[in-house]
Amino acid sequence: MRGFTPAEFQARTTRAQERMAAQGLDGLLLMSEPDLRYFSGFHTLFWQSPTRPWFLFVPASGKPIAVIPEIGAELMRRGWLDDVRTWPAPRPEDDGISLLTELLSPLAARGARLGVMKGHETLLRMPLGDWERLLAALPGLEIADATGLVQGLRMVKTPAEIEKLAHICAIGSATFEAVPQFVSEGMPLDAVFREFRRTAIGLGADDAPYVVGAADQGGYADVISPPTQQPLRAGDVLMLDTGCTWDGYFCDFDRNWAIGQADDAARRAYDVLWRATQAGIDAARPGATCRDLFQAMSAVIAELDDSGGDIGRLGHGLGMQLTEQPSHAAFDTTVLQENMVLTIEPSLSYGDGLMMVHEENIVVTDGTARLLSTRAATELAILR
Amino acid sequence: MRGFTPAEFQARTTRAQERMAAQGLDGLLLMSEPDLRYFSGFHTLFWQSPTRPWFLFVPASGKPIAVIPEIGAELMRRGWLDDVRTWPAPRPEDDGISLLTELLSPLAARGARLGVMKGHETLLRMPLGDWERLLAALPGLEIADATGLVQGLRMVKTPAEIEKLAHICAIGSATFEAVPQFVSEGMPLDAVFREFRRTAIGLGADDAPYVVGAADQGGYADVISPPTQQPLRAGDVLMLDTGCTWDGYFCDFDRNWAIGQADDAARRAYDVLWRATQAGIDAARPGATCRDLFQAMSAVIAELDDSGGDIGRLGHGLGMQLTEQPSHAAFDTTVLQENMVLTIEPSLSYGDGLMMVHEENIVVTDGTARLLSTRAATELAILR
Repeated sequence: MRGFTPAEFQARTTRAQERMAAQGLDGLLLMSEPDLRYFSGFHTLFWQSPTRPWFLFVPASGKPIAVIPEIGAELMRRGWLDDVRTWPAPRPEDDGISLLTELLSPLAARGARLGVMKGHETLLRMPLGDWERLLAALPGLEIADATGLVQGLRMVKTPAEIEKLAHICAIGSATFEAVPQFVSEGMPLDAVFREFRRTAIGLGADDAPYVVGAADQGGYADVISPPTQQPLRAGDVLMLDTGCTWDGYFCDFDRNWAIGQADDAARRAYDVLWRATQAGIDAARPGATCRDLFQAMSAVIAELDDSGGDIGRLGHGLGMQLTEQPSHAAFDTTVLQENMVLTIEPSLSYGDGLMMVHEENIVVTDGTARLLSTRAATELAILR
Repeated sequence: MRGFTPAEFQARTTRAQERMAAQGLDGLLLMSEPDLRYFSGFHTLFWQSPTRPWFLFVPASGKPIAVIPEIGAELMRRGWLDDVRTWPAPRPEDDGISLLTELLSPLAARGARLGVMKGHETLLRMPLGDWERLLAALPGLEIADATGLVQGLRMVKTPAEIEKLAHICAIGSATFEAVPQFVSEGMPLDAVFREFRRTAIGLGADDAPYVVGAADQGGYADVISPPTQQPLRAGDVLMLDTGCTWDGYFCDFDRNWAIGQADDAARRAYDVLWRATQAGIDAARPGATCRDLFQAMSAVIAELDDSGGDIGRLGHGLGMQLTEQPSHAAFDTTVLQENMVLTIEPSLSYGDGLMMVHEENIVVTDGTARLLSTRAATELAILR
């Protein structure tokens, strides 16, 4: 089923309000696509246009209030919210600022605390100049960082969210399984990407917005570039990494193949990474920390690469965004809880500047983690 | 050809530095994907991950300096920049802030003016808390709004940019032309979207990230929603609007069709909009303002709808983003210049809460605007 029930949005809001009360917050002002969608259900691709800001105010009690461009009114009013305030955006001299000032003035008058997203992995999705004007119009309002509160809520998925994530991970798995049917030596890498996208969408993904990868002799050196037109050659290691979406939720995992033949170094790197991935999956239990997962994977990676790496982390949360909190890194002591959906993503360097990445998607349960992606083959598969 | 020559990036930088000098700016600090790409050529889908901030400093003279996560180093160093500074992001306690502080301290020490994007259609793509920390670490630095400077440069496309835009618009046109081959009565709307995406990618688009539309009896009421599973019925008006991409540049236009038959109201709305579009295209000459285009289109729209509308504008700039400056709106007095690429996008309300939209993509020349999209049919086409 697409979308969520009003009861789900009510429950999310109630949980947020309980935490707001505990932290002395009198309201939340949210602006980013996933944060708005989490509490309102507002789902549109229109966010790809940077022109208009969108706002959602979560009060201490009662339903959230939307302050949005008129172009979104019809869609927002079909959802569970009652109070939808609009202006004919774009209107550069007043893009929602007077509506927000009116809404927040009572809070400012009593010196209330407003939570906004100021921390790690956030951005300010409105013009900085407008933000400064809004603050100036609301003297007395105290701004507090609500990053931990909102990310803490979003990190633990609801059963309905997990269903969507499982669905898109299954589509991602089916797409990777189809790769040997359409990829072979001589195919240009950009054609591989193109056919991968078409296959994912044909298999039921709404879209495949994130398709990256690389292919080169004995391995690759970079995992975030657009594809070249270089034809696949015997001895290449091909990696494809994808974030496909269904109903606004992402999968995010990758697969490696060798073209025609694999050398020992690539096969060894693959084996170490497969076992590092398994160590991460096995460590993913309630009560363990993200740091524990990082260390479990690092211990295996160190068989081949003891540099500690510089990618920064070995996996992350997954949901409405391709990457979400938490991070499997030494700095992140987030305690895992049941129903967190995570990527397990070890990487290593080998040979002369080569790297390899592996990734699976899991949901934390009260026992062993449940795989949402179909586990990669234990040995580096050969495409012929 | 994909990408741009180093000479193009040098020329863009020189133009920016000329304007910086004229405005008394000692540097620009850029953070958004299109702004970074415009000056560095750094092109990756990795921006879909919100985890890491990315920075580019444009000095008063010399090449820009990149301050980016280590994961992007390999790709950035392949480009034209010489000075690429990295840190192992994510590192929440210092995500580039100490590197930026080191870079900008000499400017702060002499009370220099740093331009950042603070205005309309911008956002702060870094955590607000980190921005506040950066400012606190750089007392004496004056922050100025560089929105007009950067948007003013990006608004006027180079010949190499126009080639890319023409290429993706041609692919968009071919995709719309193929619609009668795969759409017919009874097809669920979400299947229409899916096949549209697959067709666009098959015809050469790198991706079709923006596919929206609607279909309902006699017309539609909303143009930004995800598709329903409702099968197309005789008497529906179907609209598809797409932003497809090639090498990081967008097309953005739409088409309308009637399923089986069209009623008089829909045919009349279509005719008025077709002529409003033509009026916009005809008005798009160097020296005219965006407001002139808005008024030229509005005069035709008023034949059927004199409400003035509440979508906010009747078209916009087009480039690396689906929507860019300027806006065809009463508030925007930007003077059109040769080589601006624009959407011409009138919309109107009719009947009982229905709306219709039309859109074409053009480039302003020294004479009549050149169409980049294949002009829509003069009458509402019927799909059978």
